[in-house]
Amino acid sequence: MRGGTSKCWIFDARDLPPGATEAGGRLEEVLASAFGARDPRQIDGVGGATSTTSKAAIVRPSTEDGVDVEYLFAQVGIGTPGVEWGSNCGNCATAVGLYALLNGLAPATAPHSTVVMRNRNTGVRLSATVPTPHGTVPELGAATVPGSLATGVPVGLGFRHPSGASTGALLPTGAPVDTLDGGIPATLVDAGAPAVLADAAALGATGLEHPEAFAALVPALATLRRAAALRMGLATDRDPVSHAIPKVGVVAPPGDYLTTLGDHVKGSDYDVAVRMVSMHAPHPAIGLTSAVAVAAAVLTPGTIPAQLAENRLSASVIRLGTPAGVVTAEAETDSAGTVRLITLHRAARRIATAQLLVPALLQESV
Amino acid sequence: MRGGTSKCWIFDARDLPPGATEAGGRLEEVLASAFGARDPRQIDGVGGATSTTSKAAIVRPSTEDGVDVEYLFAQVGIGTPGVEWGSNCGNCATAVGLYALLNGLAPATAPHSTVVMRNRNTGVRLSATVPTPHGTVPELGAATVPGSLATGVPVGLGFRHPSGASTGALLPTGAPVDTLDGGIPATLVDAGAPAVLADAAALGATGLEHPEAFAALVPALATLRRAAALRMGLATDRDPVSHAIPKVGVVAPPGDYLTTLGDHVKGSDYDVAVRMVSMHAPHPAIGLTSAVAVAAAVLTPGTIPAQLAENRLSASVIRLGTPAGVVTAEAETDSAGTVRLITLHRAARRIATAQLLVPALLQESV
Repeated sequence: MRGGTSKCWIFDARDLPPGATEAGGRLEEVLASAFGARDPRQIDGVGGATSTTSKAAIVRPSTEDGVDVEYLFAQVGIGTPGVEWGSNCGNCATAVGLYALLNGLAPATAPHSTVVMRNRNTGVRLSATVPTPHGTVPELGAATVPGSLATGVPVGLGFRHPSGASTGALLPTGAPVDTLDGGIPATLVDAGAPAVLADAAALGATGLEHPEAFAALVPALATLRRAAALRMGLATDRDPVSHAIPKVGVVAPPGDYLTTLGDHVKGSDYDVAVRMVSMHAPHPAIGLTSAVAVAAAVLTPGTIPAQLAENRLSASVIRLGTPAGVVTAEAETDSAGTVRLITLHRAARRIATAQLLVPALLQESV
Repeated sequence: MRGGTSKCWIFDARDLPPGATEAGGRLEEVLASAFGARDPRQIDGVGGATSTTSKAAIVRPSTEDGVDVEYLFAQVGIGTPGVEWGSNCGNCATAVGLYALLNGLAPATAPHSTVVMRNRNTGVRLSATVPTPHGTVPELGAATVPGSLATGVPVGLGFRHPSGASTGALLPTGAPVDTLDGGIPATLVDAGAPAVLADAAALGATGLEHPEAFAALVPALATLRRAAALRMGLATDRDPVSHAIPKVGVVAPPGDYLTTLGDHVKGSDYDVAVRMVSMHAPHPAIGLTSAVAVAAAVLTPGTIPAQLAENRLSASVIRLGTPAGVVTAEAETDSAGTVRLITLHRAARRIATAQLLVPALLQESV
């Protein structure tokens, strides 16, 4: 399935071999083999050899009250037979929502259906709302997302009570701004996903860079990610370095720039500029969990994104300037200012239904 | 399916919609839509967004005596909703052979099965020989090819009477060496596919370059490709420029180099160095039809490859030094020296069986 700007292979947990439904171990071996992960070009499997096309989700009905399905997200290795299990993927979540409706894992109602999902990697609860006229789930739609010309079924992806799922607090260190190694100011936030949002200017960047130019900052941001992981309590010194957790990137004041598709974006069209890293490379747009993190930070006084977006916000709509274009988040807050729901308007589509021939499993059955 | 270093979606012609089994028109629209070709990342379809992973073949039983199946090869566009129909792909041919056996389009015998195939793009006849113990077609095998660590079912890909299929002659201009624009000496040969093999030294290259370094030569080679297309009678001045026909690259004397996987290759391990272009980029290994062209040129006195490989050849085995490693071709010639058969030892595997949801078709049925 395509979800937004990601391609994601979605598995029904009941179709997987025994013992291959939990993170790590057997499931990791099965996915790495199915994707051809060991090869940097993923030529011997269904992977697409880029971070946005080497993704999987394992879905199953939930026994939790008010939750339709739960899913485990897998960022499958490229050139290495491993899987990163620590993060969620919002683009895949939109695909999981549509998948659940198409495959009867959640009931379709009229005129809309809302699938409530629990992400098993992070504990975050999300909802996907899809127009289903007469209770019929569409295969096609006219919705688009920044970064792709392709159309799909509109999916409203809602992050409910998105704060603190990984660390217990919206601001894990208690501070709206921390100073990381080398004196770099950054906001450490946990909403949608844990994220480090560094001040672009402190790194000598504008935050308006094309991905190719932004690539030069990736090594420095990888270092900040590790430092922030320790500060946020996501890892200890003894843990291996994660390239997926927390999300890391820079934020900057709005300015004019050209999108990767060549469209002009004016600084007046959005509230805060964002350039994120995906694994080892510039993200071509923004991960949706990162978008939730930035939006929640914008709504939290004193954070760097809030300072940058000051006086620009029209109530509950937060507009993020990403390399692919402007991503808009809608927020609902309670009277205390706590974020109750952040919704992103996305598009998804079923690309294929397939049976995968997995060498690691076939070898055993010989 | 994977065939060698390519990934190829293979369709049974009988599964395609009416009118979508011939090159161009309706089939082009269906494939471009299925692959998400319009998007440079092919995010909305099954394409892999690289020249070696944006390929399809349409297979059907043949009514021709001695031929089991015929297939049409499609090089699907990346960032453009078109398809190049003018060339064959040897890697996909190995996959087509295995596909034909797995899907009963050709009979499996014991202990080996040979599928005879007619490529509809070029008219070339090929054979694929697969070990099928007890008449059983394997899903897995231990064979590998240069450029990938992945294992697969061994497939001996034979090009029978490979010369002149596109132009009527092994040397379409009658000369073993032509001088192209800018005084560049090149051998123009038609075997397996029409190909232009330029003298690397005349272009300031060693022919031992890594693909990244070789990329600098691609624009000059694209110009040579066009000039050669006119000389070989493959196009006229009024035809649009093809990025697929003829194949183009450089040849050079053997020398030591590092493969893309980091292995050392000695000059004494092979007969001629080759660096080919695939569409707009350096080929990571070599197209098999190009390998046939180089091998046939090596066996033809006076050509540049023959001059370079002089005194190195051990009878009928031609060893080509490619960026991915050494590709070995076995040749059978008749008493007049005419090439009867060139065989390449390859590996293929079925990765998935799938039903594709094609927007261009779904839109019509709404």
